[in-house]
Amino acid sequence: MAKATIKEVAAEAEVSTATVSRVLNDSGYVSDEIKERVMEAVAKLNYQPSAIARSLKQDKTFMIGVIVPDISNPYFMGISRGIEDVVGVEGFQLMFCSSDESPEKESRLLQLLQEKRVDAIVLATAGGNDEAIRSLAASGMPIVLVDRKLEDEAAGQTLDLVAEDNTEGASRLAAKLLEDGHVRIGVVNGPARVSTGRERYAGVLKAMKEFGLEPNPLVYNGAFTTEDGIRAVRKFLQADSRPTAIVSLNNRMSLGVLLEIVRSGWRIPDDIAVASFGEVEAGSLLKNPGLYYIDQHPYDMGIKAGDILLKRIRKEEPQLEPAVEIFRNEVNRIG
Amino acid sequence: MAKATIKEVAAEAEVSTATVSRVLNDSGYVSDEIKERVMEAVAKLNYQPSAIARSLKQDKTFMIGVIVPDISNPYFMGISRGIEDVVGVEGFQLMFCSSDESPEKESRLLQLLQEKRVDAIVLATAGGNDEAIRSLAASGMPIVLVDRKLEDEAAGQTLDLVAEDNTEGASRLAAKLLEDGHVRIGVVNGPARVSTGRERYAGVLKAMKEFGLEPNPLVYNGAFTTEDGIRAVRKFLQADSRPTAIVSLNNRMSLGVLLEIVRSGWRIPDDIAVASFGEVEAGSLLKNPGLYYIDQHPYDMGIKAGDILLKRIRKEEPQLEPAVEIFRNEVNRIG
Repeated sequence: MAKATIKEVAAEAEVSTATVSRVLNDSGYVSDEIKERVMEAVAKLNYQPSAIARSLKQDKTFMIGVIVPDISNPYFMGISRGIEDVVGVEGFQLMFCSSDESPEKESRLLQLLQEKRVDAIVLATAGGNDEAIRSLAASGMPIVLVDRKLEDEAAGQTLDLVAEDNTEGASRLAAKLLEDGHVRIGVVNGPARVSTGRERYAGVLKAMKEFGLEPNPLVYNGAFTTEDGIRAVRKFLQADSRPTAIVSLNNRMSLGVLLEIVRSGWRIPDDIAVASFGEVEAGSLLKNPGLYYIDQHPYDMGIKAGDILLKRIRKEEPQLEPAVEIFRNEVNRIG
Repeated sequence: MAKATIKEVAAEAEVSTATVSRVLNDSGYVSDEIKERVMEAVAKLNYQPSAIARSLKQDKTFMIGVIVPDISNPYFMGISRGIEDVVGVEGFQLMFCSSDESPEKESRLLQLLQEKRVDAIVLATAGGNDEAIRSLAASGMPIVLVDRKLEDEAAGQTLDLVAEDNTEGASRLAAKLLEDGHVRIGVVNGPARVSTGRERYAGVLKAMKEFGLEPNPLVYNGAFTTEDGIRAVRKFLQADSRPTAIVSLNNRMSLGVLLEIVRSGWRIPDDIAVASFGEVEAGSLLKNPGLYYIDQHPYDMGIKAGDILLKRIRKEEPQLEPAVEIFRNEVNRIG
């Protein structure tokens, strides 16, 4: 039998849904006669008003918590859309929380979700919460890591993961600039505790070594925001030996890099060439920017993550082995 | 007494937190002796593992649900940051849901949140849910509307609202283009059921009348996405009488408008001038685009919404009058 809705209860009792709500929540005046009619309709239709009470019985909330460091980054929203297209047909809804790249905030959010308000968690970790995450997984909460690994990668290998081959991608990206003859490279990166930043940075160094260069680029570490890209360019432009090319290790920082180079009156790529890990849609506003970028596939990653989630929630198979999907991406160019 | 944590229970029982979890969730093997030690520690510290069970007693979840039509729009994230900075200090966390501009999806989300999984709701409605929203508010769930009114504005006036003076703003914005001599205007708008689109469009018509023009601009109705801005420009460029200026009624569509004009080889503003309701950060990548925009203040709106939320959650005062805050914004120009 399909679950009764408040509308059906209202129709059965011949009152408005607001009246049904008032009766069930015991708020506002309702005559005894109406109250009785509503409660009879509730009983007849077996209507269950409280999802919290229901979830105690069913042990399901039909909500999946998604914790990401930057909720307005189209990359994470692309992943979410893929997940939603898979889990939505099974009745699950996504609820998003933003850690704002703060391990402390992420820790609070994990605790909130841990307490069984959600059926599973998708996490792009801000770092610093290895223990809490592993203990949460050990407690039986399905957790799928997306984009980012735990800080202690070996210990994290018991967890499901959908990520990218960051080292290889960043190495190819940097190689494009090196092939073009650049030797003074500036690298814009996030915090060192985040695996994507660590791996991508390693990829840049790898490429520099392969091209016979000393692997010691100028580096700016921020928090993966547009503002960080702006600050990085300001720092690089003041350097004694100004870089002729910048590798920016995420899409948000890359927008900041472009904005600040243009604002400072330099030309892209003639004065400073730019390469971005991740597409920057607005880059097309520039005339022939020669902008190299790693073409990410967040939606496809989300589809994979959604598949894994459903398996884990349904407990289809014992989690003997974690599911690990690594996406390998190509370098493209705008203009 | 402060609430006991799982760590304290683990320390008291001299086991790991994972073991405590296994005992409490009855998952995985744990010896009877260890089980007893854990349960003794739980009893001694009065540890309450389930937030759902706790919320049934406390009648608080410390979560505020935020439903917006486009979770990755920096405008809505600006509002959210303001809200969070106010309610966060009181221990409330925000959980975001995206309606993707779909009334059906919004309706499902409202139902999910209605069932008392959150202490309050912040809503930028996709439209079409007037009755559900009013009935939810009548049931005692604090709801603060942000950015957008209900479709039936008169009936919606019992609800708290933080919004902008859209008609006045759009009128001033369009007036800038008209002052510059443009008479063939293209308007890029969202769906007619959304109040911001309706009001802003009315503002454009108002300005046209004031300038003695027939108020019948070319119009494209989309869903407030970047892709819609792109499609609108394609349509306008094929029109018999191509507009010399475009008014785009939200920031996302404005980015699409800029991208597609540039891609088509036209110059901004010489071939086509652009005015945007809402700032487009990437607009600065263009050389002297002469881009008019309404300077919105989402963070300040969020602060106001947060203040209202706390009042309502605390039930500080009877809700005799809805709180209504309308922001009036200025026109600025890039380049």
